[in-house]
Amino acid sequence: MAGRARASASAPASIGNVGVGFDVLGLAFDAARDRVIAVREPAPGVRLGDVSGLVDTLPDTPETNTALAAAQALLAAVDADFGVRLSIDKGVPLSAGMGGSAASAVAAAAAVNALLPEPLATGDLLPFALAGERISSDPPPWDNVVAALHGGLVLVAREAPGHVQRLPAPAGIVSLLFHPPVQIETRAARGVLAAEVPMRIAVEHSRRLAAFVAGCTTGDAALIRAGLEDLLVEPQRAHLLPALAPVKAAALGAGALGCSFSGSGPSVFAWALEHDADAVARAMDAAFRAEGLTATACRAPVESGGVRLEPA
Amino acid sequence: MAGRARASASAPASIGNVGVGFDVLGLAFDAARDRVIAVREPAPGVRLGDVSGLVDTLPDTPETNTALAAAQALLAAVDADFGVRLSIDKGVPLSAGMGGSAASAVAAAAAVNALLPEPLATGDLLPFALAGERISSDPPPWDNVVAALHGGLVLVAREAPGHVQRLPAPAGIVSLLFHPPVQIETRAARGVLAAEVPMRIAVEHSRRLAAFVAGCTTGDAALIRAGLEDLLVEPQRAHLLPALAPVKAAALGAGALGCSFSGSGPSVFAWALEHDADAVARAMDAAFRAEGLTATACRAPVESGGVRLEPA
Repeated sequence: MAGRARASASAPASIGNVGVGFDVLGLAFDAARDRVIAVREPAPGVRLGDVSGLVDTLPDTPETNTALAAAQALLAAVDADFGVRLSIDKGVPLSAGMGGSAASAVAAAAAVNALLPEPLATGDLLPFALAGERISSDPPPWDNVVAALHGGLVLVAREAPGHVQRLPAPAGIVSLLFHPPVQIETRAARGVLAAEVPMRIAVEHSRRLAAFVAGCTTGDAALIRAGLEDLLVEPQRAHLLPALAPVKAAALGAGALGCSFSGSGPSVFAWALEHDADAVARAMDAAFRAEGLTATACRAPVESGGVRLEPA
Repeated sequence: MAGRARASASAPASIGNVGVGFDVLGLAFDAARDRVIAVREPAPGVRLGDVSGLVDTLPDTPETNTALAAAQALLAAVDADFGVRLSIDKGVPLSAGMGGSAASAVAAAAAVNALLPEPLATGDLLPFALAGERISSDPPPWDNVVAALHGGLVLVAREAPGHVQRLPAPAGIVSLLFHPPVQIETRAARGVLAAEVPMRIAVEHSRRLAAFVAGCTTGDAALIRAGLEDLLVEPQRAHLLPALAPVKAAALGAGALGCSFSGSGPSVFAWALEHDADAVARAMDAAFRAEGLTATACRAPVESGGVRLEPA
C-alpha cells in the first residue's frame, strides 16, 4: 500500500537541560515551531526544497542539515523505494539554545514518517531525530529531541537502551525565555566543560535534580524552587554570557522559581508561578537592557505540545 | 508547667542513600528499632542508664554516645533546668550500615522531647538528632537521621537551610536487607571516596537518581528499575565487600528492582516487587553462602514508620 504523497509536521522549540537536568531533562517550549513539508519524489535520496521563516537559506545536504539527515536516516531504516523533498519553515532560531536543530530534525522525521505506508509511532522516531541532531552536535544530546518529540517535561531515564518518560508537570507554572542577540555554539559550549567535577558538586547537583523532579511530579512549588539551580554546568559556562548573573538575580528577586541557560545558551529561561510571571519578565528584560542587550522575550506553558502533523 | 517525668520512644533502622541517592535519600526500615527511655533527674546533664538488646554496654558520655549527644543538644537548646538518664535498648546493630547510630539519636531526641513542658514538633528535632549522629560521623550524614525521624522514603532537598521532604513511595515494593558478619566503619567507608569524579559519572548518577525519584513519586516500577543503580559511590566501595558483586547479580537475576549497599555497608539491600521478594531473598542468601558468609536477613515495607513514642 502506498503512503501519502505530501505531509507536513511541526515541532516546538525546547529548553534543553531545564537548568538542573544537564543531558537528562528537556522541556518543550511552544512559543515557536519549525514546520517541515515532505513531498514524495520518485528519485531516492533527500533534497532541500523551499526555506522560509527566520532564514532564507539552509545547508542543503544530509551531512549538513539536521532535517535532511533525519529524513535520510528514516528512509534508510525502512528501505524506502522513494525519495523526499523537504521544505522548511524555520520558526525556531538556530544557535539560540532553543532547540532549533532538534525542532527541524523532529518535524522532518514526523513529516517523512507520515509518507510511509505504515508509519511508526511517534516515540519510535527518536533514533532518526537523533541522527538528525547529530549534525548539530556529535554525540547528539537527547534533551531537545525528546522534548520536541513528546512535548512537556521529558526525562531521559536511560540512553542505552533508550528509556524516555514524559513527567507530570505542575500546573500554573510558566516558562519565560529571553534570547539575547549573541551567539554561543553548542559545540563550543560543550568544549568548556571540565572532564572531572568535585564529588561535592556531583552530590549537590544530584540533590537539586532529585528535588526538582520530586517537585514537578508531586506539584510542590517549594521543592521545585529548592531544586531549580544548576550547580554542575552553569558555573562552567557563565562566562560565555556576562549578562546571566544580573539577569538571574533579577529573575529570582522578582519571584522566579529558578533561572538558568536554556540549553547551552545564549538564551536564558526562568520558571515562574503564573501570578509572578509578568513581574519576572519585566525584571529580566530590564536586566538585559542594563547590560546593553535587547533580548527577544517569549513565554509558554510548561505543558507545551510536542511534534504534530499539520494540514499539508 | 512541668513536663513528664519519664518517656519512651523508638526509632527504626534505615537504609542510607537507598543505593542511588548518596547523601540525598534515606529510607526507614522497620525490621528493627532502637528504644530509648528517658527519665527526668534533678541534676543537670545526661547520663547513661541500662543498656539492653544487641549489646550490654555502650559508651557513656555525650562525647561518645549518639543518644546522649542528641539528648544533651536538645536540653541545651531549650535551656532545661533538669537532667536525664537514658536507658537504651539496641535493636539496630551498630556499624552495619543500618542506621543504628541515627536510630538511637532520633529515639533519644524524641524521648527527651516528650519530657519538655512544651515539646517540639517531630520534624524540629532534626538538629538535635544530627548533633547525636555527629558522634558517629562528622559532618553527620542526614540520610539515616531523616529516615528514622520521618519514616518512609525521605529526600533531603537542601541542607542549609534544611528542607526535608517525605516522598510518596510506591505500593507493593519490599525492602530486603542482608547483614553479613563483617564490619565497615562509616568513617572508613567515606575515606575511600575520591575528591573528584568524571563529569560523565556525575551526569549518569544524576540521571539514575532522577529516574528513581520520578518512578517512586509516580508509581512507575520500570522507572524505579531504570534508576536504582549507584554509579557514584558503589564502584568506589565495592572492594570493601567482595560478596557484593555476586549477591547483587543474584538479586537482579531473581527480579530485584535494584541492589546495593545499605548506607556504607556492609549490609546489602534490594528492592523487589512483593511477588518477587521471596525469590530475591533466596537468591541473595544463597549468594552470600557461596561467598562463605551467613548474613542475617530481614525485610520491611517501603512505607516503614518513623520515630514514635511508646508506652513508658
